Amino acid sequence: MGTSGNFSAVLSRDPLRLAITVSGIDKGLLSVDQIVEIDERGKVLAGSGKPSAESSLHIAIARARGAGAVLHTHSIWSTILSDNAPETGLAIEGYEMLKGLDGVQTHDHREWLPILDNTQDWAAAVPQVEAILAQQRDAHAFLIRRHGLYTWGRDLADAKRQVEILEFLFEVMGRKRGMTWQP
Amino acid sequence: MGTSGNFSAVLSRDPLRLAITVSGIDKGLLSVDQIVEIDERGKVLAGSGKPSAESSLHIAIARARGAGAVLHTHSIWSTILSDNAPETGLAIEGYEMLKGLDGVQTHDHREWLPILDNTQDWAAAVPQVEAILAQQRDAHAFLIRRHGLYTWGRDLADAKRQVEILEFLFEVMGRKRGMTWQP
Amino acid sequence: MGTSGNFSAVLSRDPLRLAITVSGIDKGLLSVDQIVEIDERGKVLAGSGKPSAESSLHIAIARARGAGAVLHTHSIWSTILSDNAPETGLAIEGYEMLKGLDGVQTHDHREWLPILDNTQDWAAAVPQVEAILAQQRDAHAFLIRRHGLYTWGRDLADAKRQVEILEFLFEVMGRKRGMTWQP
Amino acid sequence: MGTSGNFSAVLSRDPLRLAITVSGIDKGLLSVDQIVEIDERGKVLAGSGKPSAESSLHIAIARARGAGAVLHTHSIWSTILSDNAPETGLAIEGYEMLKGLDGVQTHDHREWLPILDNTQDWAAAVPQVEAILAQQRDAHAFLIRRHGLYTWGRDLADAKRQVEILEFLFEVMGRKRGMTWQP
Repeated sequence: MGTSGNFSAVLSRDPLRLAITVSGIDKGLLSVDQIVEIDERGKVLAGSGKPSAESSLHIAIARARGAGAVLHTHSIWSTILSDNAPETGLAIEGYEMLKGLDGVQTHDHREWLPILDNTQDWAAAVPQVEAILAQQRDAHAFLIRRHGLYTWGRDLADAKRQVEILEFLFEVMGRKRGMTWQP
Repeated sequence: MGTSGNFSAVLSRDPLRLAITVSGIDKGLLSVDQIVEIDERGKVLAGSGKPSAESSLHIAIARARGAGAVLHTHSIWSTILSDNAPETGLAIEGYEMLKGLDGVQTHDHREWLPILDNTQDWAAAVPQVEAILAQQRDAHAFLIRRHGLYTWGRDLADAKRQVEILEFLFEVMGRKRGMTWQP
Repeated sequence: MGTSGNFSAVLSRDPLRLAITVSGIDKGLLSVDQIVEIDERGKVLAGSGKPSAESSLHIAIARARGAGAVLHTHSIWSTILSDNAPETGLAIEGYEMLKGLDGVQTHDHREWLPILDNTQDWAAAVPQVEAILAQQRDAHAFLIRRHGLYTWGRDLADAKRQVEILEFLFEVMGRKRGMTWQP
Repeated sequence: MGTSGNFSAVLSRDPLRLAITVSGIDKGLLSVDQIVEIDERGKVLAGSGKPSAESSLHIAIARARGAGAVLHTHSIWSTILSDNAPETGLAIEGYEMLKGLDGVQTHDHREWLPILDNTQDWAAAVPQVEAILAQQRDAHAFLIRRHGLYTWGRDLADAKRQVEILEFLFEVMGRKRGMTWQP
C-alpha cells in the first residue's frame, strides 16, 4: 500500500533505545524488512540503513509520554482533516468510540488533537513538538498538516488500537463535513 | 477491527439465560474468545470476565421482543445518521431492501428507528428502553446517538442479516445526504 | 452480503427454458444453492423452491433481447441514482468505460437507462417492461427505482462484465453529484 | 475488475521493443494472459493478438521519458477529477505523499498533471502527446479526460508505486471537493 507510514518500539528506557523503520520504506511501498536500533540522538547502533527522517519525532514522543511504541500513518481522512481545519487542532467530542483511547471512560469526552505544520527538518522542529506535548498533556495523538497521524501506546498493539479508533472517528467527521458540517 | 460491537444469544427462556460477550472486548479490538453466561439480572453464572456494560440492554431486548439473539454494532454510517437526525428517530421508507427485515413484505414500508441518547449507565436507562420497545412495536432496531445500532432476531443469523440490510440502507441515506437531501 | 440480487440463464430458446434462482434468496443473504428450471410462463419444471417473484422480468428480457443470461443486482449507487433522478431514466455520456458495454465502440456514446417504478406485482408489470424494451432498443440495462439494476448478455460472464462497467459509472456519477453536479 | 487498464514494459531501447497487453483486455475484464512484443511503430513482432489501441501512447512515453514501464489505469477518482477540472491540467500541491513520486524531495512541491481530451484515434494524437511531454518536463503522469491515468517509471514496480501515490492524492482531492473545495 502506498499509504502506510513508519513505526518504532522502545527497546530500553535508560539509556533510551528504539527499534525504528528505516528511511525510504516509510511510504510503505516496500515490505518492511529493515529495522534499525537507534539511541536517544538517533544514532544507529545496530542494523543497516538510515533511520527514518522523522526519528527525532519518535524519540521526542517516547520521552515525553513514556510510550513503548509510536505509530505514524498516512491516510486519506487524516490528510483531509488536518488540511481542512483552519485552526491549530482538531476537536473530537461526544462519540462512544472515544472510549477506545487509553484511559477514556465516557463518551462525554473532548479529545483535542494538535495539528503541526509539515516540515522537512524534524530535528529542528523537536523543541516545538516537545512544547506541544508538554502543553497538551491529555492528547492521545497529533496530526501533521496534509501529512498524517502520530499516536503512541504502551506497546504496538495498544498504539495500533488507537490508530483504528482515530481513523474511525476521522472518517465519521470527514463524511459528516461532506453533508452539512462546515469548519 | 476497531468498529465491531457486542452480541448475545438466549440460552434458555424461563428462566432467562444469555450468553454474552465480556466487557473490554466490546470495542472489537481483541478476538472474541470470552463469552459468559448471565441471568436475567446480569449476574454471571458461568465463565470468567465482567459482562458487557450494556448487558442490561440485551436482557431488556430479549425480554421485550422474545429475541433469540441481539447484535450491537458500531459503524461509520450508523454513527453519522444517529448524530445528524435532529429528531427522536430515523425514518427509512420506500426501499426494496426493507424487505430483508423480518416480516416486511413490500418496499412500500416505513421503518422508524428510535434514537436513544447515549449514556454510561445503561442499568438506569432500562425503563426508558423498555418504554420505547413497548411503544414502537414495529421497530426492528434502534440507534444510540453517536454510538451505534441494536437489532435482534430469532437467532444470530437472522440478526446478522438485519444488520446487513440496515447498514446498506444507512449508507444509501448517508450518501444521499451528501448530495441533495437535508434532514 | 445483504446486497446481491438474483440471476437467470437460458437453457433452451425454443421452447424457452430458464435456470433461475429461487425466491427468498434473492436478497443474497443465503448461499445460492437453489436454482430451478422454469418455462416461459414461470412454471417450475425441475428443482424445488418457488422461483423469484421477479421471474416474469427475466423471461421478458430473455425474449425481447435474445439474452443468454440476465443479472439483477442491488447496490448502493444504483439505489441512489435511480432514486435521485427526477426523470424516467438516467443518461450516461462521454466516458471511456462505456466501451465495456456490448457493441459500444467509442467513448462518445450516450447510454440511456430507463427507470421503472418499483412494484410488488411484476407479472402485471410485464407489458410495461416489454414496451420499454421495445422502445429503447439500444439500452443495455434498466433501473428499478430505489431497488436496483437489470442487465443482460450473451452469457453470465458477458452480463457480469456489464454489471461491473455500469457500477463503475454509477459510482463516478454518484460521487460527482456529491461535488458540484445537481440533477 | 472492470476498472484496470493496460501496461507495457521496454524490452530493448535501441531498437525500441515493448511488451504490451493486447486489445480487448484493456478493460481488465479478462485475466491478462496475452502480451505481445511490438516495435517502435506498433508492429507485432511476437505473440498473437492485436496490441492495445493505445500502443502509440505507450511508445511515445517510452521514447520521450526513457521509461522502462508505462501503466494506464481506469479509476473512479481519476475519471472524476479529469472531468471536473475546467482547465488543461490538475495541480496537486503541498502533500507529504508527493514525496513518493520519483525525485520529489519535499512536500512543498507542485505537481501539474496535464489533461488530454479523449479520442478514438491515438495514432493521430501522438504529436500532441509528444508536445505536452516536451513542454511539461517535470510531469510524472497525465490524465485523459473521463478516461484515466498514464504514469511511467524505471520499471513496473516504480510505475506501480506512482499509481498508488497518485490514486491516494486523487482520492484526497476528490473527497475534499465533496466538502468545501470548488474547482
